[in-house]
Amino acid sequence: MKAMILNQYGDKAEFHLSDLPQPAVKVGHVLVRIAATSVNTVDTMIRQMGKDLPLSPDLPAVLGMDFAGTITAVGEGVSGFAEGDEVYGCAGGLADLQGALAEFMLADAKLLAHKPKNLSMREAAALPLVGITAYEGLQRAGIQAGQTTLVHGGAGGVGHVAVQLAKHFGADVYASVSGDKAKQIMAQYGATAIDYKTEKVADYVAKHTDGAGFAVVFDSVGATNLMNSFEAAALNGQVATTVSLLELDLTPAHFKGLSLHVVFMLIPMLYDHKREQHGAILTQLAEIADAGALKPLLDESRFKLDDVGKAHARLSSGQAMGKVVVEI
Amino acid sequence: MKAMILNQYGDKAEFHLSDLPQPAVKVGHVLVRIAATSVNTVDTMIRQMGKDLPLSPDLPAVLGMDFAGTITAVGEGVSGFAEGDEVYGCAGGLADLQGALAEFMLADAKLLAHKPKNLSMREAAALPLVGITAYEGLQRAGIQAGQTTLVHGGAGGVGHVAVQLAKHFGADVYASVSGDKAKQIMAQYGATAIDYKTEKVADYVAKHTDGAGFAVVFDSVGATNLMNSFEAAALNGQVATTVSLLELDLTPAHFKGLSLHVVFMLIPMLYDHKREQHGAILTQLAEIADAGALKPLLDESRFKLDDVGKAHARLSSGQAMGKVVVEI
Repeated sequence: MKAMILNQYGDKAEFHLSDLPQPAVKVGHVLVRIAATSVNTVDTMIRQMGKDLPLSPDLPAVLGMDFAGTITAVGEGVSGFAEGDEVYGCAGGLADLQGALAEFMLADAKLLAHKPKNLSMREAAALPLVGITAYEGLQRAGIQAGQTTLVHGGAGGVGHVAVQLAKHFGADVYASVSGDKAKQIMAQYGATAIDYKTEKVADYVAKHTDGAGFAVVFDSVGATNLMNSFEAAALNGQVATTVSLLELDLTPAHFKGLSLHVVFMLIPMLYDHKREQHGAILTQLAEIADAGALKPLLDESRFKLDDVGKAHARLSSGQAMGKVVVEI
Repeated sequence: MKAMILNQYGDKAEFHLSDLPQPAVKVGHVLVRIAATSVNTVDTMIRQMGKDLPLSPDLPAVLGMDFAGTITAVGEGVSGFAEGDEVYGCAGGLADLQGALAEFMLADAKLLAHKPKNLSMREAAALPLVGITAYEGLQRAGIQAGQTTLVHGGAGGVGHVAVQLAKHFGADVYASVSGDKAKQIMAQYGATAIDYKTEKVADYVAKHTDGAGFAVVFDSVGATNLMNSFEAAALNGQVATTVSLLELDLTPAHFKGLSLHVVFMLIPMLYDHKREQHGAILTQLAEIADAGALKPLLDESRFKLDDVGKAHARLSSGQAMGKVVVEI
């Protein structure tokens, strides 16, 4: 089968078209003919940092975590899936798991769900990693209808899904973004845009929450932006983040009695830990998408398998508005 | 009425016996004849740091947060309490709220509950601050029966209550302590003692959890010890702490996908924020105490109102085993 492989890691690492043996199906797994995959920041980090990241696969490596495609073979012990089913998931491209930059991929059935009928293969391939991340963060934050919820990075990969899901859960949603296009998108989602370049935290907390702070803050920017999240959170507020790889002053979290939930959605893949939860979340996301309440935003760019290097460059450029998808 | 007051803050601050007007009861409040109060670390911090802490009262100050006593007057709008009722709570000694180092105290009825029948006034006065803290931390960590739960500082004020409550909730409880007496107490509570001076985190995680880590870690030591808690926690584990006034490397929390819950139980008092939750927790704690599953450990020392300076010194000495109580 055709696959794009990396023979080295680093800033100059390039993908090469290669011919690999098609994987054989095995117990608990399905074989999927990949229709599309999407590029996530973690994919570009693996390509650049290689073994400086504990989760990078050995070389030569087939990256690509997210995918949508069609089942061509079902392993022993798998229930709920049949040959010909259209599925989606986030199930490879790290550690010892082959990724989706290939015509076929062997995937643990526990990590998959049936593709949302409302979404194209390209849209479905854009959803798993960011969708599971957003869903997990909002659930762990205990989001409830009516709660004021702030999503930092509202137009980003995880953020734009978190905004839609928070609306679906009935929250009163605000999103930090920049630029007219992002503001328009937030308006379409029914969220109130906050321009993080011009509005100070204290000002938008005063304006939108009467100074009380947001009950839930989903920080898809993370890292030093967490200080803005702590400042924006209500007393005993819930802060979820996707990035906490740093030293941080927790004093504001102390005096407000906050909860901080770090979402690291690769855990089930890396450690074969509660993988069935990802299948269950993807099933939920498919229902929400089919109800018309969730649709991943796709960047205007289009790439084929051979162009995956350009797809990585597009994501890294910061110019993409929406997820960068590669058709196989 | 007699009261012990502070006329200055700092290392040399001393309590002075004074005669203050008895407070008048007001709407939503009750007047309580204080039987006993207990000393908490935050009381000694206020005495020493004064206005360097944002929560310290103006001088002259009557400290003392915890109390047990008997209602002598009931304000308008108060239901569920009557003159003569024995009550306990944590309701003063900070900001603009007069504390319990006095014969009478005016207390917001929302912060109180009926005293556990099983406990003496001295025992009941030892429970509110540490009991609410332990209860809140375990609840926010979502503790469930059967979960491996580690309490750091198991013999401390908050810790020894957290151990008993975690057992009551059906958890499999481990507690870090030092010294034979503390180990005996943990055994009485049905918890497994871990000697933090001789056992390394990786070793006791391997020994007690097969290397998987603890589902819940309640860190009543906090601060830099949080690194030990992150190391001891399971994937997607829950860490609750009472002290996070520091810069901390959150990288381990990221790679394990942890939740960190900071318990700052003074919030309802400081900001008049959801005070009724404290009354509700104290009612729960009274039921648990009356069922025989919770009993605060009292230090062997005994102090009267005039001796409160010695009571503070006893707590600060680190020699107390159990709560330091002052009878009024």
